[in-house]
Amino acid sequence: MLPSIRYLSEHLKVSKNTVENAYGQLAAEGYTESKPRSGIKVLPLEKPLLPLTQYNDVARSGRCDSGQKPAAPYDFTYGDIDLNHFPYKVWKRCLQDVLTSGEPDLFLYGAHQGDLGLRQELAKYLFQARGVRCSPEQIVICSGTQHAVSLLCQLLSNRGRRVAAENPGYDGVRSVFLNHGWEVRPIGLEADGIDLKQLAESRAKLTYVTPSHQFPYGMVLPIQKRLKLLEWAHHHGAYIIEDDYDSEFRYQGRPIPSLKALDTKENVIYLGTFSKSFLPSARLSYIVLPEELTGPFCEKFRRYSQPSSPIIQRAMYLFMKEGHFERHIRKMKKVYQEKHKTLLSAIDKYFGDQVQIIGQKAGLHIVIKANKHAGDVISKAEKQGVKVYPVSDFWIDPEDSPSSMVMAGFGGLSEMEIEEGIKRLQKAWSS
Amino acid sequence: MLPSIRYLSEHLKVSKNTVENAYGQLAAEGYTESKPRSGIKVLPLEKPLLPLTQYNDVARSGRCDSGQKPAAPYDFTYGDIDLNHFPYKVWKRCLQDVLTSGEPDLFLYGAHQGDLGLRQELAKYLFQARGVRCSPEQIVICSGTQHAVSLLCQLLSNRGRRVAAENPGYDGVRSVFLNHGWEVRPIGLEADGIDLKQLAESRAKLTYVTPSHQFPYGMVLPIQKRLKLLEWAHHHGAYIIEDDYDSEFRYQGRPIPSLKALDTKENVIYLGTFSKSFLPSARLSYIVLPEELTGPFCEKFRRYSQPSSPIIQRAMYLFMKEGHFERHIRKMKKVYQEKHKTLLSAIDKYFGDQVQIIGQKAGLHIVIKANKHAGDVISKAEKQGVKVYPVSDFWIDPEDSPSSMVMAGFGGLSEMEIEEGIKRLQKAWSS
Repeated sequence: MLPSIRYLSEHLKVSKNTVENAYGQLAAEGYTESKPRSGIKVLPLEKPLLPLTQYNDVARSGRCDSGQKPAAPYDFTYGDIDLNHFPYKVWKRCLQDVLTSGEPDLFLYGAHQGDLGLRQELAKYLFQARGVRCSPEQIVICSGTQHAVSLLCQLLSNRGRRVAAENPGYDGVRSVFLNHGWEVRPIGLEADGIDLKQLAESRAKLTYVTPSHQFPYGMVLPIQKRLKLLEWAHHHGAYIIEDDYDSEFRYQGRPIPSLKALDTKENVIYLGTFSKSFLPSARLSYIVLPEELTGPFCEKFRRYSQPSSPIIQRAMYLFMKEGHFERHIRKMKKVYQEKHKTLLSAIDKYFGDQVQIIGQKAGLHIVIKANKHAGDVISKAEKQGVKVYPVSDFWIDPEDSPSSMVMAGFGGLSEMEIEEGIKRLQKAWSS
Repeated sequence: MLPSIRYLSEHLKVSKNTVENAYGQLAAEGYTESKPRSGIKVLPLEKPLLPLTQYNDVARSGRCDSGQKPAAPYDFTYGDIDLNHFPYKVWKRCLQDVLTSGEPDLFLYGAHQGDLGLRQELAKYLFQARGVRCSPEQIVICSGTQHAVSLLCQLLSNRGRRVAAENPGYDGVRSVFLNHGWEVRPIGLEADGIDLKQLAESRAKLTYVTPSHQFPYGMVLPIQKRLKLLEWAHHHGAYIIEDDYDSEFRYQGRPIPSLKALDTKENVIYLGTFSKSFLPSARLSYIVLPEELTGPFCEKFRRYSQPSSPIIQRAMYLFMKEGHFERHIRKMKKVYQEKHKTLLSAIDKYFGDQVQIIGQKAGLHIVIKANKHAGDVISKAEKQGVKVYPVSDFWIDPEDSPSSMVMAGFGGLSEMEIEEGIKRLQKAWSS
């Protein structure tokens, strides 16, 4: 039994209120029980409780990231963008305008499918730039491609949980399927893209492809194969996930129109991202759903909140609406074209015909093929302050990957860094 | 065969370059094939192509959101926060500081597990406020509770895909499990929370609970049951997902310490969110993983990008580091306490003992129980400009839900609106 409130307050020389509050807290947490006329009883605990001491190692770095990015002066990592030409001022102003507007919606959870204005701008952009005909109702704002594919795994899980994927292909999407318990059927590539015969034999009801710029090889799926791929989907009641990840940047001629632009039967689920064309840290990507999937999508996810911040979405909306996005793409196409040219000439200058370049007309990366083992090249290059990357992760079975290829992204490096990086790479390569 | 470049350029009176570019594009997209010395051949297409016309219905509203929020002047929706006391200026300044700092990391993808500074601040906060001992390595920043639970579904899918969940409980989490193909076993509630006997019988290796403020009923799991729950998890090699969703706001005494604070054997996976305590539109939540899960987590998700924008994360870090978050919580506790008091007195004033209030000591919502059918009350109230909400979704089988309960959130309403809303609710109720 605990002493009475009056007794304890006198004994400890504190106010009755204080004792009452303390007793109230003990009761709320279940340590005591109070019964009328019999006082307050301490309830038994079977086990002693743990002393409350703080974890004292808060200075260590975060686990998944530890050791992941040892600084290299010439880091040909894929995924970096050019920051020297990024329109800081305009983007900052867009964010400020959003914060100043004080619209209540910008402080709450935001619309389930994403900001309506942003989706309207996207519908216009996708039509003009990629030939995609869709309404804002078909667009879902996502916070990155993994998030988008996770939603699709959940939405399409009643289709046998088997997906046919280009091999080699983008590991960042493959791992989402695997993590959701899907079987990933590898489909080989021909010189002009995915092998349609293997696809037909896979008996999958879903395929994931990168038709405008195959990842990582960069080939374009020609029009005849596109139509056959659509035919396959229509005939088998299948869906095609088209990942149009860096379609904006093509250095010979105009961008290749999307597969979705040819999709009369609504078999294509289109994925796009702002990470390459604008800013990775906006963490904005999008799905364009076939019309017949919009209903099931809303039903399946009606209890999910939109994960992307309405603040960022609204700023992106302003940035597009005011025409900055189109201007930015035009500018960056030139910037990346120059970098790309510098990269190819540097390789030609330092390597001559010792290496072969794969996928050289578009995007923010190339694949370099040589007569050396990639592992050696990568570790030797690192000693010269240059980072290039293995390609083995892109194969479903890394054993199948050619041992003589490395990947080099160039978006984040200046032309001078590219030139010097390739010079050092050659030094490492030939040592 | 296409005419030669020279012929066509003379014929059309355009430069050779123009024709060359056009021919190049046709070749890149696979419409033509060029062979040395035999000219450019048009390749056959089996089907006519679709004319490219824009979808002309861009003005319609986004599907999932259409009709979801018809404005009601007195909307007791759950999830809204108080915007009148929100520190706009400081938050805006934090965002500006981030944009001005120009750190390159803030423009790229950001660290996988989330901003390290933010995780360090969170580790301190969680220790001080919730008794959670953890290192920043154990913390994963997520963009909302659905995102966090989706990751856990993927991480723990090898544990039999069965989860035991409080019934009634939070439908926003239950639907994530169902969408990932998990079986959700309903566990009934006793007066003091989850029924441990039913839990033991469920043979699940995972349970989802809200021990500090049961959703939606609001009871606190007492210390004896907490220890038994931990014992159950340890004994069965199970994990407990503790959702500590609005633990900051408790109006009698101090906050109830978290279950995780008692977790010596590392069986608790802790979930928290900034949506209630700070700002839903930051879209920031977090997982605290048991140490033994940090390795498998990194392995499973090493190809996933962090979905939350580094800009928002860094601003949140500054907001916490400068002490604004603690001050904000202290202030809001008082603000919500006043609103809560107003709500209870208004109910007392207008309803007297016609209704019973469930869960009245904490959080941003209450449940009202009466002798009328909830459906009637909700539709009649709407005609009076008042929105209250059904509770049936919180039951795994909505048929099991009591027909006489409605849910009322009060975070987003002013005291005057609460008073007037309840007055009108009573009018509707008794009509």
